[in-house]
Amino acid sequence: MLQNIRVVLVGTSHPGNIGGAARAMKNMGLSRLVLVEPKVFPSPEASARASGADDILERTQVVATLEEALAGCTLVLGTSARDRSLPWPLLDPRESGVLAAEHARQGAEVALVFGREHAGLTNDELQRCHYHVHIPSDPGFSSLNLAAAVQVLSYEVRMSWLAAQAETTPAQSNEVAPVRNADLATMDEMEGFYGHLESTLVAIGFLDPQKPRHLMARLRRLYGRSEVERSELSILRGILTETQKAARGEPYKRKDQ
Amino acid sequence: MLQNIRVVLVGTSHPGNIGGAARAMKNMGLSRLVLVEPKVFPSPEASARASGADDILERTQVVATLEEALAGCTLVLGTSARDRSLPWPLLDPRESGVLAAEHARQGAEVALVFGREHAGLTNDELQRCHYHVHIPSDPGFSSLNLAAAVQVLSYEVRMSWLAAQAETTPAQSNEVAPVRNADLATMDEMEGFYGHLESTLVAIGFLDPQKPRHLMARLRRLYGRSEVERSELSILRGILTETQKAARGEPYKRKDQ
Repeated sequence: MLQNIRVVLVGTSHPGNIGGAARAMKNMGLSRLVLVEPKVFPSPEASARASGADDILERTQVVATLEEALAGCTLVLGTSARDRSLPWPLLDPRESGVLAAEHARQGAEVALVFGREHAGLTNDELQRCHYHVHIPSDPGFSSLNLAAAVQVLSYEVRMSWLAAQAETTPAQSNEVAPVRNADLATMDEMEGFYGHLESTLVAIGFLDPQKPRHLMARLRRLYGRSEVERSELSILRGILTETQKAARGEPYKRKDQ
Repeated sequence: MLQNIRVVLVGTSHPGNIGGAARAMKNMGLSRLVLVEPKVFPSPEASARASGADDILERTQVVATLEEALAGCTLVLGTSARDRSLPWPLLDPRESGVLAAEHARQGAEVALVFGREHAGLTNDELQRCHYHVHIPSDPGFSSLNLAAAVQVLSYEVRMSWLAAQAETTPAQSNEVAPVRNADLATMDEMEGFYGHLESTLVAIGFLDPQKPRHLMARLRRLYGRSEVERSELSILRGILTETQKAARGEPYKRKDQ
């Protein structure tokens, strides 16, 4: 369904940006690029910046008008600076990604339209869009590089597409930090470790059983936060075993000593 | 608080990418760029691609090692291809943005680390990161342009920052584990600890310098996940000091013995 989403670049001046846009698209799984009156295309500079996304450049359609570029589309999102005389339904990139991916998933043709490097889209062009997209940027330095803008919107499309794919199962990733796919030590294994740790700390004289303070509690908190894996626990216990030997006056000798 | 977030580029080959990264950062309100051993910098190509973000380039810090670049940081996020031999806590860009913005809002120093254009970050460099960040990309064409990767992460930081600003209510915190309100050890303090740990493990015969395997890497990952507090670090170092004494054959004697 990602192939239902086309990227339309209007009046691009720098062919390097066309290549950069193609690369960004391909990284994010998009493949259809349409150029409206590019200044220079094809161009070695575009191919260089595409670094490997040549297939997209080869299949790029070059047309004379935005109208042609939008043929067949039922959803058109156009990037825009925030303040326009004519207020228009405005989305941020995330909302745009969700909307574009959802439409495409249902079989609709979607266009993401990007304007000229310095002048953006004209009012006339913007009025052909269902929604305007504003990439939130620092008001003092708001104009993104064209390929960077394509990257941000393509990324949001992909994020939304991936989320939709993953969501046969609900309650997905955003809500918590990812669960490590690891064999974690059980609570009783951790208890065995804490006992071993405590006796070792006594053996080396770091922990005074008469004045334990909160030492073990603090170490429990430290290791507990880390969610120790079983294989890590065996490293820690190996260290304790060797430490206890050292404390018993069995200093380690290398074989060559 | 965005000024607490630095972007670190390691071993960048193409100065154009440095300029592109600076522009992307400035668009998103970030300002601190640190370069570790760039091939060429400063450079007219960097300035050209920065198109107006020259102030960031002028204040860019150039250092010799990643360690220097991370000085003072308590949260380090490193971009990575997905498959690594040593699994590490992995975030997507959105989770990274939330985490970085939240830490920075609470006054912590945060680094977003990006590797070389072709080779990425080395395993050693990746092991200095608390989290790895994977930008979801098409498996068949997964390597983003460096400036594009900086754009995506900077964008997510800004989105999260704007969301936090808009929300005087803290319902937002559901998305990631809350940041502990603690005085965390900095990266350079952690490096001092790892050096101490390593020499101690050699002293007790647990670590064979001839066959280190992945031992230190695994311990870095374990403690890195835990986000060690400064006061906890001094406990750990105290344990190491006593262990080294024991290894030197200075077994602890209680006063009553």
